[in-house]
Amino acid sequence: MSKPDKKKPSAEPEIMEKLVALSKQRGFVFQSSEIYGGLKSCYDYGPLGTELKRNVKAEWWRAMVTTREDIVGIDASIIMHPNVWRASGHLATFSDPMVDCKDCKERGRSDKWPKAEKGAEVEYKVVVDHQSGKKETRKGAVGDLAIVCPNCGSPNLSDIRRFNLMFRTSLGSIDPLETISRRLEGKALSGEELRKVLADAIDETAVYLRPETAQAMFTNFLNVQQAMRMKIPFGIAQQGKSFRNEITVEHFTFRSCEFEQMEMEFFCHPPEFKPEGEKSDMEWFEYWSNARLAWYSNLGIRKEKLRLRPHAADELSHYAKGCNDVEYDYPWGWGELEGIAHRSDYDLKQHEKHSGKKLTYFDPQANKHYHPYVIEPAAGADRAALAFLIDAYTEEPPPPGTNEGRTVLKLHPRLSPIKVAVFPLVKKEGMPESARKIVGEFSKSGIKAVYDEKDAIGRRYRRQDECGTPYCITVDGQTAQDGSVTIRERDSMKQDRIQVADAVKVVQNRLAE
Amino acid sequence: MSKPDKKKPSAEPEIMEKLVALSKQRGFVFQSSEIYGGLKSCYDYGPLGTELKRNVKAEWWRAMVTTREDIVGIDASIIMHPNVWRASGHLATFSDPMVDCKDCKERGRSDKWPKAEKGAEVEYKVVVDHQSGKKETRKGAVGDLAIVCPNCGSPNLSDIRRFNLMFRTSLGSIDPLETISRRLEGKALSGEELRKVLADAIDETAVYLRPETAQAMFTNFLNVQQAMRMKIPFGIAQQGKSFRNEITVEHFTFRSCEFEQMEMEFFCHPPEFKPEGEKSDMEWFEYWSNARLAWYSNLGIRKEKLRLRPHAADELSHYAKGCNDVEYDYPWGWGELEGIAHRSDYDLKQHEKHSGKKLTYFDPQANKHYHPYVIEPAAGADRAALAFLIDAYTEEPPPPGTNEGRTVLKLHPRLSPIKVAVFPLVKKEGMPESARKIVGEFSKSGIKAVYDEKDAIGRRYRRQDECGTPYCITVDGQTAQDGSVTIRERDSMKQDRIQVADAVKVVQNRLAE
Repeated sequence: MSKPDKKKPSAEPEIMEKLVALSKQRGFVFQSSEIYGGLKSCYDYGPLGTELKRNVKAEWWRAMVTTREDIVGIDASIIMHPNVWRASGHLATFSDPMVDCKDCKERGRSDKWPKAEKGAEVEYKVVVDHQSGKKETRKGAVGDLAIVCPNCGSPNLSDIRRFNLMFRTSLGSIDPLETISRRLEGKALSGEELRKVLADAIDETAVYLRPETAQAMFTNFLNVQQAMRMKIPFGIAQQGKSFRNEITVEHFTFRSCEFEQMEMEFFCHPPEFKPEGEKSDMEWFEYWSNARLAWYSNLGIRKEKLRLRPHAADELSHYAKGCNDVEYDYPWGWGELEGIAHRSDYDLKQHEKHSGKKLTYFDPQANKHYHPYVIEPAAGADRAALAFLIDAYTEEPPPPGTNEGRTVLKLHPRLSPIKVAVFPLVKKEGMPESARKIVGEFSKSGIKAVYDEKDAIGRRYRRQDECGTPYCITVDGQTAQDGSVTIRERDSMKQDRIQVADAVKVVQNRLAE
Repeated sequence: MSKPDKKKPSAEPEIMEKLVALSKQRGFVFQSSEIYGGLKSCYDYGPLGTELKRNVKAEWWRAMVTTREDIVGIDASIIMHPNVWRASGHLATFSDPMVDCKDCKERGRSDKWPKAEKGAEVEYKVVVDHQSGKKETRKGAVGDLAIVCPNCGSPNLSDIRRFNLMFRTSLGSIDPLETISRRLEGKALSGEELRKVLADAIDETAVYLRPETAQAMFTNFLNVQQAMRMKIPFGIAQQGKSFRNEITVEHFTFRSCEFEQMEMEFFCHPPEFKPEGEKSDMEWFEYWSNARLAWYSNLGIRKEKLRLRPHAADELSHYAKGCNDVEYDYPWGWGELEGIAHRSDYDLKQHEKHSGKKLTYFDPQANKHYHPYVIEPAAGADRAALAFLIDAYTEEPPPPGTNEGRTVLKLHPRLSPIKVAVFPLVKKEGMPESARKIVGEFSKSGIKAVYDEKDAIGRRYRRQDECGTPYCITVDGQTAQDGSVTIRERDSMKQDRIQVADAVKVVQNRLAE
């Protein structure tokens, strides 16, 4: 649910230009539909970028699902029932005049909000401490819209907007344009009448691309809990594409209209039902904030480039009890990498209200039905992959006594697209055959390995440095004699001699470190 | 590119009803947005279904990319430039009157096709052998549309249709309905005028959800080939969601509007540039047809339930040199599991024509630029997962002397969502603690394991049988004495005693078999 921040686009720092160029040259990221001039903010991952993103997603799944007994995964459809988005507050139909409360972030239709006299002085209460729920009384004058917020009573509202954040499409065999043209034929209508005809025709078949994966965890809450016999506290995790019609897209793959999320909803005890000795909701909120921060540093992002930023009270929705952003120090400044939100029991209650279906958990220990609280770590696979790339990008000056520096992607070996490159020193004396055999051994063990025989050995090393390949193995004259090869480590450039027979095991062990 | 067949929906056989019920109960597949009454043909994978589908996709990626030096992966955006779909022939704008040639499958706008006199007798040539390109001359009378096919000259055409196969949405911050209402305000227009206004307004921002992943392999052909320095023959593979506004959706997850594809485009030598000793395009076509058939049987689908069905000449597009379907004997009859198509050089040439960018490969050996031929194995992750589930579903009668049978999912262990379940025989004497420790050891090795202590041991075995879990480990009284546990194999129900210390290794070895 975490929303990206709203900074203005600016000229990219030089390092971003270099990274974009390297990405294209080495096959990390291409502009989508490039031969047709590209498409706003759409990118295609090339072979290396695809492997990098797969590795990022696999590490997240391993940390969040495979190794945890208390979290299970789902994979929901991107197109969901439109009422899901009515309940979540994402859906404003084309003809709805929408307004936001600047104090408590409530969003709704201005024509349904409480009327008030324009210019009248009103008193209202704003939550200033979300954890304790402490409120402060404020005063203000009712504006031109002559309405106040139905949640907190504030007259401090946005202008009316017709939101179009979600991508709308249509499910069914009839094009809604056909319906519209039938209904409008020969009729001269006013703007307001037209809007009504258009909105009605569209609504008959409209569906939306999900703007987040999170809602499927709420709509499937009971199905998952019962099928898997889960007990509070437990989590439901999902990875998948989401879509937002962003007005501002920027910083390469940082903010795009199409992006892949990695979200987890962790259902825990509300304070009144928390048994002795269990973590409280606020403790789980802290736990997940720290765990998610640690995930990035464990996968190699420099600690000084990461921080947790708690949201200020005026950044929070009225139902949120807290939100921490994991921030990264991007070349353009600190920005969001992931958000961890304490969403209280808001979402389950919203879906219960809109669906008319009970969404409570039966707690056998307390012998009670209740709505659990929810902690939500919401990460982005594209944004994480970008941060890993940026953090790994290193230009090393020439070592003393030489005049050639190198560009190297110091990716964590588990994230590296290619794990091992195997070179014959020269293209003769059986070296190519031996090298290819070694590649085959790695492939059989599921470790991505490549063969390269082109150019001098130094250039081959530098090519793999730019791809972030942690290990290069070279077959040389000694190999035929004693079955040994050299293995070179990317960052230190140190070389060891190892036995061919041990090569897979040596790399496996280093990857597992 | 393979299109699903067009059978009529029918009452599902009993086994499908049972499988749907088991899927919900055990957490394989739920109806999407179920609390809102569901949404036509949309499904959400539950925890076990998610792991099954992840395993299917991982096995495909391993077979097609990780273990092959000649194939690399990409991960392209779902929303591509609209001209991609103009070039591929998928896009007919709302106002385009579309028509199909029944003889050569050409599709186009009826108002752009060659005029002919209604009722006139015409001669035309139809390819009857796609491999050799052999044609047969036929005769026919021009129909009511008074046009003939621009490709083969046939008057044997479909009715005019306004196709809406692709999901259309709109990229940008302005809702096209706003544009339409502005342009139509106060105007009374005829049907034809209205269609024009609507189509023009929509086209300004229209984009489409891809109906197949394949086109991104063609648009990225040169970027990938150059970045990865690939030499013909080589392949580009991709997994990801595609969307088709299917009129007929049926058989559970067999045909849905939203589905996940696993496609690979294999670029090989056209006959005139094939070097001595290399496989020809037709040999690659045979190679991939057999390789893909074998993939399913290697992962456990019974051989007698699989077959290759070559398409008849009248099923093929004019540019196709052949198509084989891998078919499975579903409970409702033989149907497509995967299609392997020989697409000649059609796609690259189409994109070259529409984009104005050269899409030829430079062959250093032949010292020539040319368009490679393409073999395309196109599989579906959802359909494959469904076939694996159906094939694995087994009801075993009670063994002699007992009165309780069992339902068991005989999935290949590498596809099973859970690899190991660990049980304490009883909930005391330190058995739960020992069992949990074993679960932890498996998790650390990345092997999905679960703990279960509820109900009698027999019921726990049967529960895991229904989940397709290949191995159950039980901690019993002997464990504390000699460090041994029992391991029970799902299909044979045979039990061995092994050492706790060897448990991970034993399972790893069995999974690698």
